[in-house]
Amino acid sequence: MDVLTYSLDYESKVPLYHQLYSFIKADIQSGSMPFSTKLPSKRKLSSYLRISQNTVQSAYNQLIEEGYIISKERKGYYVNKIDHLQNIYMQPDTSEDYNKRSKMEAKFDFSYHGVDKTTFPYAVWRKLMKETINECDPELLQLGDSLGYYRLRTVIAQYLHQSRGVNCNENQIIISSGTEVLYQTLIQLFDEDTIFGIENPGYEKLNQLFISNRANFKSINIDRNGMIPEEVYKSNANILCITPSHQFPSGEIMPINRRLQILNWANKEGGRYLIEDDYDSEFKYSTRPIPSLQSLDNNEKVIYMGSFSKSLSPTIRISYMVLPPHLMRRYNKNLSYILCPVPIFEQKVLYRFIQDGYFERHLNKMRNIYKKKREVLVKAITELNCGIQILGADAGLHLLIRIPNNMSEEQLIHSALRQGVRVYGISGYYFDKENIGVIPTIMLGYAEISEEEIVKAVKLLHKAWFE
Amino acid sequence: MDVLTYSLDYESKVPLYHQLYSFIKADIQSGSMPFSTKLPSKRKLSSYLRISQNTVQSAYNQLIEEGYIISKERKGYYVNKIDHLQNIYMQPDTSEDYNKRSKMEAKFDFSYHGVDKTTFPYAVWRKLMKETINECDPELLQLGDSLGYYRLRTVIAQYLHQSRGVNCNENQIIISSGTEVLYQTLIQLFDEDTIFGIENPGYEKLNQLFISNRANFKSINIDRNGMIPEEVYKSNANILCITPSHQFPSGEIMPINRRLQILNWANKEGGRYLIEDDYDSEFKYSTRPIPSLQSLDNNEKVIYMGSFSKSLSPTIRISYMVLPPHLMRRYNKNLSYILCPVPIFEQKVLYRFIQDGYFERHLNKMRNIYKKKREVLVKAITELNCGIQILGADAGLHLLIRIPNNMSEEQLIHSALRQGVRVYGISGYYFDKENIGVIPTIMLGYAEISEEEIVKAVKLLHKAWFE
Repeated sequence: MDVLTYSLDYESKVPLYHQLYSFIKADIQSGSMPFSTKLPSKRKLSSYLRISQNTVQSAYNQLIEEGYIISKERKGYYVNKIDHLQNIYMQPDTSEDYNKRSKMEAKFDFSYHGVDKTTFPYAVWRKLMKETINECDPELLQLGDSLGYYRLRTVIAQYLHQSRGVNCNENQIIISSGTEVLYQTLIQLFDEDTIFGIENPGYEKLNQLFISNRANFKSINIDRNGMIPEEVYKSNANILCITPSHQFPSGEIMPINRRLQILNWANKEGGRYLIEDDYDSEFKYSTRPIPSLQSLDNNEKVIYMGSFSKSLSPTIRISYMVLPPHLMRRYNKNLSYILCPVPIFEQKVLYRFIQDGYFERHLNKMRNIYKKKREVLVKAITELNCGIQILGADAGLHLLIRIPNNMSEEQLIHSALRQGVRVYGISGYYFDKENIGVIPTIMLGYAEISEEEIVKAVKLLHKAWFE
Repeated sequence: MDVLTYSLDYESKVPLYHQLYSFIKADIQSGSMPFSTKLPSKRKLSSYLRISQNTVQSAYNQLIEEGYIISKERKGYYVNKIDHLQNIYMQPDTSEDYNKRSKMEAKFDFSYHGVDKTTFPYAVWRKLMKETINECDPELLQLGDSLGYYRLRTVIAQYLHQSRGVNCNENQIIISSGTEVLYQTLIQLFDEDTIFGIENPGYEKLNQLFISNRANFKSINIDRNGMIPEEVYKSNANILCITPSHQFPSGEIMPINRRLQILNWANKEGGRYLIEDDYDSEFKYSTRPIPSLQSLDNNEKVIYMGSFSKSLSPTIRISYMVLPPHLMRRYNKNLSYILCPVPIFEQKVLYRFIQDGYFERHLNKMRNIYKKKREVLVKAITELNCGIQILGADAGLHLLIRIPNNMSEEQLIHSALRQGVRVYGISGYYFDKENIGVIPTIMLGYAEISEEEIVKAVKLLHKAWFE
């Protein structure tokens, strides 16, 4: 082959060498320049196409680099052996667009996921962000400590000790993004044949998480005090995932005796542990917060887990866990490849937010706000005088109600929605459906909804359920 | 029990009710107030201790709440049944402090982990951060899209299409923090009996990651063109993890024919896939970047993975993957519980950085800087005239050298360190040690080290290895 005829666009933004490269590549791919075809010499092609020899050289170099042609010394350039690319038949996509999740419009939403957005200390957070930006140039580019920013771990350890009685130092703390990630880490930390016991009903994501991580788990029924010890013993579980401060979704608090029973279960055999998810513990209204289960543990049996999702914002996405010393050593030995997924910037801002006392002030403020909302909600429901039973209202950011009007959970949700109020059922949180109570139970979150809206929404619920 | 004698501190900051609560709790825990002990009435205790009845009531309420006492209607308050907490013998911690990882001092470090810290566009990044802070108040508190910030996914899709030929839209992109997390997600996405094939030698963390996630994997030997097809067929692997743009650690680029062979392997059977880790693809020096393997794939066989760790900074901790449409549907169905672990703030700043053209400019600048460093390094080594062979120098941020002085890899590293230069061996990247070459190979990263330092360090290496 002496020359190649391509119509190059001399005024294009695409460099000439790249145009030439693309043309030749297309010819090789299509098979019109088969294996072992000799390419024109640089000299000939450059004069034919009226481009410089350097341009041809660049195009040839790129083709060599990608393996389309080879250069044989003193012989020239040849098309390389290229396997023909096989195509397989693809089924056309008939599923609906998975990004459009339809949601019926609701005027009021008792969601239990969010936080009150109107009271976030934007000004302070902004100020700290700006200060952090200005001061931490070089550190922004350093790969931080794989456990998390040292100073943040230090203030978290102090905070946990003061407010939750947790006994730990900063070297036992692992910072991550979301408790799901921490559960995944724990699945890796323990043996493959570990059986995790999870609360029934309980946090629905745990179920999914253990399934998709192929961990063994059993759901263990709870009563109003938490996991039932007899069922724990029967379950063969080694590690219990529990929420003693505020069971999800029941909202109940585990009393001291049940705590001790569960701790004693763990103490009875090596390899037994408790994962205490101290979710929502910051919000307890009628009495002082109850110290964590971890604070009762003298035998390195409790893994403590917490996050800033409810106390600050779910978007902060900073969570942490406290490992007992011997498990921390195992972590450092086996899982040192894990890097803290939280950007150093967020960690620094949060560190200052806690260190400068803003976090404590924010918590106190939010506790009052949520307490007020809870009172408004409880009062509004009570005043309906319809025999609605209120459960689990002493802590956290949601409560449960039982509605004795013979509607099913689904009917309750739908008739509320028809009035423009979104409420949530709890049957979805039962992994073992046998245990669901007879009277349907509805969950009302009150973090995001305002006091005024609560009053209006409860009136609409009355209309939906009793009129 | 009529009264309880405790010395309350009336001037303490600790509220009286809490002092009382603590005293009673301690007595119950120690057993000095055993099960079924009747507590003094509120009236009697309040007058005895000279505190208000409300204070006693608060203390009792807290004790009830925590389960230490119970209230019997018209009878009074009684100590509850509390299981005695068992203690088990703990072995004292004799291991050394795991947080002190000793590191011999080195004056020059050819680390391959970092990036050039002197050239990061701090001013622009700061500006964008500040603008983002000022404008995004409400969104800061909203739980973002679980796949990642929509706009960021859009500009990443555009960038990948333009610069890497990747065919995808934003709904196929999943944003996460670090490629390790994405590999974990993929392990969950595929069947339990999937066998992952990893490059030997290869990225050492993959090994750890698959082990600790209990995934099946096999190491597959590479030659200078990447994974050897015969060995791939022999391996029984279903999913290959490959780095065609810049193999780690060899630094070699996979030529087109090997790419097609590997693609054809995937096309031959259902359930076969390629994970293309396009690590370091941004930095290619002598010719244009080679389009991604994904761009050649017509059969939804390639999962494309990338990150901003090298192109921006490892601390940004933003990575992404592109799933073929049918795997994206599977992800949405099975793994919807996974939330994007990157804070919305970082995602917004990065979005603007890309959208406003800063990223492209930064890449161009860094490509020149790294190219220059590479030239300085190659020149310095070549000028030593010691027969050192240079490998894999055409892309990425590191190269390999083979030193024909009969020293072992360990000897090379140690004698360099004695001269104050830290270099890295590659034998640790071989999962299957049989395949290690005869002449020891040293890896030199040149991202963090300056040009001047390179010249000085290479002179010291000469001293270490040839004098």
